[in-house]
Amino acid sequence: MWLIFQWTLTLLLFSQMECRPTQSKSERQDIRNCISVPPYLPITATNTTRQLKGLQDAMNKYSIGAYIIPATDYHLTAYIAERDARLTFMTGFTGSAGTAVVTHDKAVLFTDSRYWVQAERELDCNWDLERQPWVSNIVEWITRTVPEGQIIGADPFTFSIDDWESYYSQLNKVKRNLTSIEENLVDIVWGSARPPPPTNDIYILPNNVIGMSWQKKVAFIREEMEKKGATAVLLSALDETAWLFNLRGDDIPYNPFFYSYTLLTLDSIRLFMNQSRVSNDVHNYLNATSRENGVLLMDYGLVKQEVIDYIKKDNVQVWIGTEYTTRGLYEVIPDTKLIKDSYSPVMMAKAIKDETEQKILRECHVRDAVALIQYLLWLEKNVPKGTVDEISGASYVDQLRSKQKYSKGPSFSTISASGLNAALAHYSPNNETKRTLRVDEMYLIDSGGQYLDGTTDITRTVHWGTPTVFQKEAYTRVLMGNIDLSRLIFPAGTSGRNMEIIARRTLWDVGLNYGHGTGHGIGNFLCIHEWPVGFQSNNINMQKGMFTSIEPGYYHDNEFGIRIEDVVLVVDADVKYNFSEQSYLRFETISLVPYNRRLIDTSIMRREQVDYLNQYYKKIRDLVGPELQNQKLTEEHDWMMKQTEPFHNNAVMTNISVILLLIVTMGNTLL
Amino acid sequence: MWLIFQWTLTLLLFSQMECRPTQSKSERQDIRNCISVPPYLPITATNTTRQLKGLQDAMNKYSIGAYIIPATDYHLTAYIAERDARLTFMTGFTGSAGTAVVTHDKAVLFTDSRYWVQAERELDCNWDLERQPWVSNIVEWITRTVPEGQIIGADPFTFSIDDWESYYSQLNKVKRNLTSIEENLVDIVWGSARPPPPTNDIYILPNNVIGMSWQKKVAFIREEMEKKGATAVLLSALDETAWLFNLRGDDIPYNPFFYSYTLLTLDSIRLFMNQSRVSNDVHNYLNATSRENGVLLMDYGLVKQEVIDYIKKDNVQVWIGTEYTTRGLYEVIPDTKLIKDSYSPVMMAKAIKDETEQKILRECHVRDAVALIQYLLWLEKNVPKGTVDEISGASYVDQLRSKQKYSKGPSFSTISASGLNAALAHYSPNNETKRTLRVDEMYLIDSGGQYLDGTTDITRTVHWGTPTVFQKEAYTRVLMGNIDLSRLIFPAGTSGRNMEIIARRTLWDVGLNYGHGTGHGIGNFLCIHEWPVGFQSNNINMQKGMFTSIEPGYYHDNEFGIRIEDVVLVVDADVKYNFSEQSYLRFETISLVPYNRRLIDTSIMRREQVDYLNQYYKKIRDLVGPELQNQKLTEEHDWMMKQTEPFHNNAVMTNISVILLLIVTMGNTLL
Repeated sequence: MWLIFQWTLTLLLFSQMECRPTQSKSERQDIRNCISVPPYLPITATNTTRQLKGLQDAMNKYSIGAYIIPATDYHLTAYIAERDARLTFMTGFTGSAGTAVVTHDKAVLFTDSRYWVQAERELDCNWDLERQPWVSNIVEWITRTVPEGQIIGADPFTFSIDDWESYYSQLNKVKRNLTSIEENLVDIVWGSARPPPPTNDIYILPNNVIGMSWQKKVAFIREEMEKKGATAVLLSALDETAWLFNLRGDDIPYNPFFYSYTLLTLDSIRLFMNQSRVSNDVHNYLNATSRENGVLLMDYGLVKQEVIDYIKKDNVQVWIGTEYTTRGLYEVIPDTKLIKDSYSPVMMAKAIKDETEQKILRECHVRDAVALIQYLLWLEKNVPKGTVDEISGASYVDQLRSKQKYSKGPSFSTISASGLNAALAHYSPNNETKRTLRVDEMYLIDSGGQYLDGTTDITRTVHWGTPTVFQKEAYTRVLMGNIDLSRLIFPAGTSGRNMEIIARRTLWDVGLNYGHGTGHGIGNFLCIHEWPVGFQSNNINMQKGMFTSIEPGYYHDNEFGIRIEDVVLVVDADVKYNFSEQSYLRFETISLVPYNRRLIDTSIMRREQVDYLNQYYKKIRDLVGPELQNQKLTEEHDWMMKQTEPFHNNAVMTNISVILLLIVTMGNTLL
Repeated sequence: MWLIFQWTLTLLLFSQMECRPTQSKSERQDIRNCISVPPYLPITATNTTRQLKGLQDAMNKYSIGAYIIPATDYHLTAYIAERDARLTFMTGFTGSAGTAVVTHDKAVLFTDSRYWVQAERELDCNWDLERQPWVSNIVEWITRTVPEGQIIGADPFTFSIDDWESYYSQLNKVKRNLTSIEENLVDIVWGSARPPPPTNDIYILPNNVIGMSWQKKVAFIREEMEKKGATAVLLSALDETAWLFNLRGDDIPYNPFFYSYTLLTLDSIRLFMNQSRVSNDVHNYLNATSRENGVLLMDYGLVKQEVIDYIKKDNVQVWIGTEYTTRGLYEVIPDTKLIKDSYSPVMMAKAIKDETEQKILRECHVRDAVALIQYLLWLEKNVPKGTVDEISGASYVDQLRSKQKYSKGPSFSTISASGLNAALAHYSPNNETKRTLRVDEMYLIDSGGQYLDGTTDITRTVHWGTPTVFQKEAYTRVLMGNIDLSRLIFPAGTSGRNMEIIARRTLWDVGLNYGHGTGHGIGNFLCIHEWPVGFQSNNINMQKGMFTSIEPGYYHDNEFGIRIEDVVLVVDADVKYNFSEQSYLRFETISLVPYNRRLIDTSIMRREQVDYLNQYYKKIRDLVGPELQNQKLTEEHDWMMKQTEPFHNNAVMTNISVILLLIVTMGNTLL
């Protein structure tokens, strides 16, 4: 998956709000008009008068002039739970990106172009919509609206350290003072209507999918702490705690996490979470009764106070990863007791998968390939009937995955886009935009699954009829880019940013390109976008044992979109010379689904690219073939075998043709 | 040229210094021994007792505990004039990189591994040598040596802004206070023995090599200032002023610059320089009598006071490039009146060469190719005789260039390295290390010239006998890297850092690499390393009209070194598709000297690489051929024609051979 896509939250409404006379509900679905008299609101808009009044009352209590509400939760996760959808509760807006600011007589939502239409359908006339969502625009609006000297309040647990500092310094320049407010004011208004914390069980990963026991991981991180001079590590990202203890939960969509923090010191382990969810098994597993070698279970809400108590001690140094720590925890630790890195040692350790993790991530990709091959065959049979649309397709592929062993649901909201819809950067089908899949249109399916043994993410683009010459060329060049990067040999420690041009070069040769990154790290039954691995400028350098996606594309406005995405593992490369100390690495592709033969034009491919493709197809046969047979999917097996027929190397073929022609000519002449 | 190489300064000595008894001069050339009794000093060491005493007296006057002496001049140039060799005067050390710190009873020189042996030959026993030259090491030494609370003095005009801030903050943490000292204390000691400022004439570039008149350049920069909200631009780098006014001088080695600063405001132009050097012609050319449209000539030493006076005005904003402004000027401008960019608008404008500049830089490369072809032929004839060594070779190529039209000397100290010497990163031949060139060793020549119409920089690596299979493969792979990057098509605005992997990939394929950057910008009769263009992470993105070198290499410890360097121009690329707004660019190679045929193995090259090479060779014939004939260099012309014979494409040849064999077999069978 190339970017975080919108996750549509269920709209949370106060039942039976009092309505202003202008807000009589209409059956119309189009956008609002706050200028007309009376103002017009579509049925999709939410009356927010009561929430706003409640918030403004709470602001009075703290004497603040404005309150900022971001869309983030207390762990800066990509997907948030319903109880953290504070922005949606307050505004009615269900998009995943936006910031609200409320003063005593104004309310404004800032969001980007992806969400303008949606915001105009969902906001009532209490809200202004601002179309530039950057901090500088928000500060500029506050400067215009709130008098000098007033306090601008916010919940620091909903801000990253960087975002807070950016707001703070810009507001400070214009003499407005950004201030941490202890209580979250939206939660006060939401009150008992706010969805309760999840109570379902936390579960232990089965032994066969665990690389290192939590005890070994703790020991390893403590070694890193000793080297760094840290006495404690504070973990705020949910996947850090989940990885460290080999525990999982179901608190947020698509990610198997549970709400938690960890404070790991050289001689104690404090795990902050809802203790009522800890079964006896988990309690024993964590050795929670032992003060010495066990995990001290503490209530989720105690984390801040425990950190404050800890840093009161002499000679303590708390190590944090600034990318995933909120301002709320950061601000209680004085600089003199803080060790900052972009990523915590847990994040860094998690990025390098050990032998077991590599093995199981390979295995789950074999089963994932089975599901996707089933889907592609099903499409081939059903698309010509005109019975598949983008939404029913997405739902069917999710269903196929759910039948595979260890399945724990999709790893993100499936992107299922036909024809011109696939050219949109942030397309997610809905009932109004969905297209029926057709044999004369290209179709892009970007999907993935969560399994107990790993997370998958793969994109295939297909055509069931006769693609145009240009579509074939564009597809083949995207594929050549994927192949070129996949077969690159590079010194250990090369940055992904510097190597991703290899995936673009074949497109650039003819003036084509794509406007997104080339790939992202991926977790083991964790995040679909796992930082800090990938090909962006803020990713860390490539090391053996990392997993990343490789996903070049090409998007032709109003016509079609192509993306070819595989997950790869960084492994040792066998190089001819080995004079220096430098070790060389390469990628091993672990996604195992054939590309679309109708869209491949081998005549523009280089010989080594075709050779690589044939080797890859052989690997699909060797690894996925037995699993298809095992699952008694005979038709799918036949289809896969047909799709993975070796391609003849074009250069060789041309020459053989010439030779044959010459021989025939020669023969004729001589006879 | 790949890095700034050591420029050996003439050693400046006080005549007849008083000697300590231990310093009786020896004829031995090896390194000192300050532990033996009496201490042993080689003949190459300098007695610095008097200088040190003088400096310590001057330090007393300012009540400072330590004084820092960097190797830089007041303009942060790559090469410095003798009168700026303060570090050498004070220490005796003639290397180009180092920092001295003097306290009341200690003196220490910090320098890197390139210079350790040299420093031990040149320093007397007044000096300690510290082998880690980073700011943190220097600060650590000061912390150990100078008591808390003491003032650490330095001349802020010899520090970049960044370096000063780095020293300042690190010293501040340990309670030592870095303080600007108005006078340069070394200059006080040096007194009248310090070489005087240059007095030779400043000259105007001939009309035919000027792209834009200085008036047009000033108008253009003023437009940029208006856009930026700046009322003045302050220029500190010598090539900024030289470029702006189309003037040149001979004040420092290898670079045609003269000591100067410029303060360009929206309604005035102040040029600070030694006015006695301004001829009537230059005076008229600068329209120096007109207050309105002319250049106000002011004494070099007045710049600081004039900047101070200027910033006293209301509503002024001074725009500087922080990379080339010294701390000395920076610290007089308050933050509220300062606009900072890494590079000044003059530096940015200079990076994009206009049509005239592109034309003349192409032209001077044709004549430069003539000189290098003469040299390569001469080597071919003389190396087998055993009469050429690294130094005589370097001197001969400089001599050949000096005979070309518009020649103004070498653009840097020629790197002439045979056999294992070429594997050393910073090799520069001297009488002890020089090797005689031999037919069984590879030879690397990295050289360039200054011409009125441009600056050149080219590296060729040659072999006159039978190279090993590995040498041929390594050379061919370096060449393939050069070709691959040279023929890359890329979107305008791509960063060089992200594309330079293209030059490394063919080496990486077999586990080889090189440890330096892939290229640097180049000036028009200006700097050989012209920032901010190039392939490093701190270079700006590639735009049409930029020039850069492309110089991959391979260095095999204790055996040989390979580098193949050409200068290229960024031009429009003609691409098949043009759907987006994005424009595509490519490189045009303007260095025109054949590579070494003995070292090229076309069997490992791809067809398109061989095609590219043949096209390049045709271009050499078309462009350099007529110039060689014009200069009546018949033998050189024949040699060049032989060297540029087209290569047969290996793939094609193999197939033709197979076909011929088949035809013969076929014929035999049938007959």
